[in-house]
Amino acid sequence: MSSFERMWADLAPVGRDPSTGGYRRLAWTSTDATLREWFTGEAGRRGLDVTTDRAGNLWAWTADPDAAGPGLVLGSHLDSVPDGGAFDGPLGVVSAFAALDELRARGFGPSRPVGIACFADEEGARFGLACAGSRLLTGALDADRARALTDDSGTTMAEAMTAAGADPRLLGRDDDALRRIGTFLELHVEQGRALADAHDGRGAAVGVASSIWPHGRWRLDLRGRADHAGTTRLADRDDPMLTLAAAVLRAREAAVRHNTVATIGKVRVHPNGVNAIPSEVTAWLDARGPVEDDVRAVVGDVGAAAGTEPVEESWTPSTVFEPELRDRLAAVLAGPEGPGVPVLPTGAGHDAGVLSAAGIPTVMLFVRNPTGVSHSPAEHAEPADCLAGVQALARAVEALA
Amino acid sequence: MSSFERMWADLAPVGRDPSTGGYRRLAWTSTDATLREWFTGEAGRRGLDVTTDRAGNLWAWTADPDAAGPGLVLGSHLDSVPDGGAFDGPLGVVSAFAALDELRARGFGPSRPVGIACFADEEGARFGLACAGSRLLTGALDADRARALTDDSGTTMAEAMTAAGADPRLLGRDDDALRRIGTFLELHVEQGRALADAHDGRGAAVGVASSIWPHGRWRLDLRGRADHAGTTRLADRDDPMLTLAAAVLRAREAAVRHNTVATIGKVRVHPNGVNAIPSEVTAWLDARGPVEDDVRAVVGDVGAAAGTEPVEESWTPSTVFEPELRDRLAAVLAGPEGPGVPVLPTGAGHDAGVLSAAGIPTVMLFVRNPTGVSHSPAEHAEPADCLAGVQALARAVEALA
Repeated sequence: MSSFERMWADLAPVGRDPSTGGYRRLAWTSTDATLREWFTGEAGRRGLDVTTDRAGNLWAWTADPDAAGPGLVLGSHLDSVPDGGAFDGPLGVVSAFAALDELRARGFGPSRPVGIACFADEEGARFGLACAGSRLLTGALDADRARALTDDSGTTMAEAMTAAGADPRLLGRDDDALRRIGTFLELHVEQGRALADAHDGRGAAVGVASSIWPHGRWRLDLRGRADHAGTTRLADRDDPMLTLAAAVLRAREAAVRHNTVATIGKVRVHPNGVNAIPSEVTAWLDARGPVEDDVRAVVGDVGAAAGTEPVEESWTPSTVFEPELRDRLAAVLAGPEGPGVPVLPTGAGHDAGVLSAAGIPTVMLFVRNPTGVSHSPAEHAEPADCLAGVQALARAVEALA
Repeated sequence: MSSFERMWADLAPVGRDPSTGGYRRLAWTSTDATLREWFTGEAGRRGLDVTTDRAGNLWAWTADPDAAGPGLVLGSHLDSVPDGGAFDGPLGVVSAFAALDELRARGFGPSRPVGIACFADEEGARFGLACAGSRLLTGALDADRARALTDDSGTTMAEAMTAAGADPRLLGRDDDALRRIGTFLELHVEQGRALADAHDGRGAAVGVASSIWPHGRWRLDLRGRADHAGTTRLADRDDPMLTLAAAVLRAREAAVRHNTVATIGKVRVHPNGVNAIPSEVTAWLDARGPVEDDVRAVVGDVGAAAGTEPVEESWTPSTVFEPELRDRLAAVLAGPEGPGVPVLPTGAGHDAGVLSAAGIPTVMLFVRNPTGVSHSPAEHAEPADCLAGVQALARAVEALA
């Protein structure tokens, strides 16, 4: 059994819902604590020193990055969306450890420290804000705002961190941790089918990311008038569920027209009673695409259909990974012959995008996902492709460290 | 201050949400206990004996109905929907006490016992099943099913009753309590604008109910495929939120076409994440109308739009109140001259409908609602119309008891 296979098997039961096969690995829960123990254990097994930064992100280093750094950092995250897949996040962390094993087996001695990072709360599934760990690290997320974020049961991030043994008073940009990162390289399962369809359908196991699409989240506050579902004449109704329906359909139409994606995946209905016309429906719009103006146009169209101005809850401009690093990596991975390595943009936000936006030279590798399905128990990557990802990471470290 | 005004003022703060002005009076809660204490106190103030039946419904009697009965029962319920109005339910109970006061002031001695009923859990807001108290009383609702119903936090009705000091083991058809009811007369705020629009717009303060429309609830299980909102191509999606939108719009279209009402007021989305295409949306359809076949046609149309067979969760056929009683009451209230009393059907279910379906001679009075709005903090009836309702109840008792 390879070290990759052993690590994968160790993680398989953690936070798994046996009824769906999906994972529920939310930040600062007991499941999260188990994942952190696993990370520390794997680091210890390899003689790596583990530190925790002010945001609660974990770092395992082959050598002291303060003395010999800055270093080359690999890694990703271990948390998941509710009922998520096994690969989104963990594949990058497990592959990083496995790549280090591969390099050591070859006798490769890096010229600078190599680090493996595990970012906290990447999915934002509990507190509603994605990439919270990396955003806190770089200062892109204000510490006071983060501490006050609440989960569905009203627990604040500060309370959840405290319950997990972390100190929320430490939150804030962590210059010491940032200074140690010379280059960041995140491997991630692809969340689409570009690699499966690459090379005229022959496919590619691994690709290099060029950029992350501009993306954002908007809230639609759809107000109506509560009334009795059995007795109120249709003409007398002001039913915000009808407005929601119009907004959902317009989001799809506008996304097609403007060459973007757009999704209404979260809805809250008040009072949400079978025999009550709702007084209010709140819906969240997620919109992304290659071109910022097109994304903005979709949001405007949905607002027009909903008769309300969408409230912007987050916005991330286009992230372009460092071109020189990206091209160098693509060349290393392509080798002297063959069809080359696909270089592709993505619609998903990642910790790599947050670090890149903070000025850290950053690049990403994607591993083929045969169905493209992600954020779902059906998310998958073939074992051979996972091993190709490990090999690619190892070659990248050889070239970059 | 009249006894009506005093009782109304006493009830005003119970279960009221100061932020909306709406009421949250759910079954077997501490608020419900306060309402029950109020009922028992008003009964005691008038020398009425209070008994509780096996379902937890309260009965206050002027004389022993087992010895001198069966009696004429007035009453309604005190519970509310979440964020409901002040009138739906309490108007009938308060008016019953006030009508008794009016009759005593006139020196009227009824020829048979007069009872005032307060039915438990009429709205079904906590456990999802309307008229639970009256349905248990008549045996229309199975006791085992009722005990196992759960609220949103997983508490069963049996647990909630026990916590409130009631004994759920007693649930089951209560023949002793049923035998005491010779005639049932429920006064209720109208939940539409038929009385406001009656007599060519001149309106009428009080009306008599002819029937309750056939009505039911259906569940739509809309399945899709969970996926990432940022990376899944539009063409690769199977998004059940789009199906929901189609079903919502079809419900309205079909209701217009078939002369019914139809509402999707309750929705559950899984996993309900901003960046996740839902794997499943569950929606509830409430449909009602004068003609059963038309209601069924609407449900069929919505099922076709949703691509799934709606699951019937409840169905109540048309309830026609006893014609002789209805006509007699209308004649008593109309008096020798004047425009007559409007006789109207309603789309709302009531305890009166449950008792009528169990073979008890039953009729209802409605009090004008100027806007027709109900199940909302905006629900209203003018004080003069409420007093007209009390007078109508008193005259009905004179005629029937």
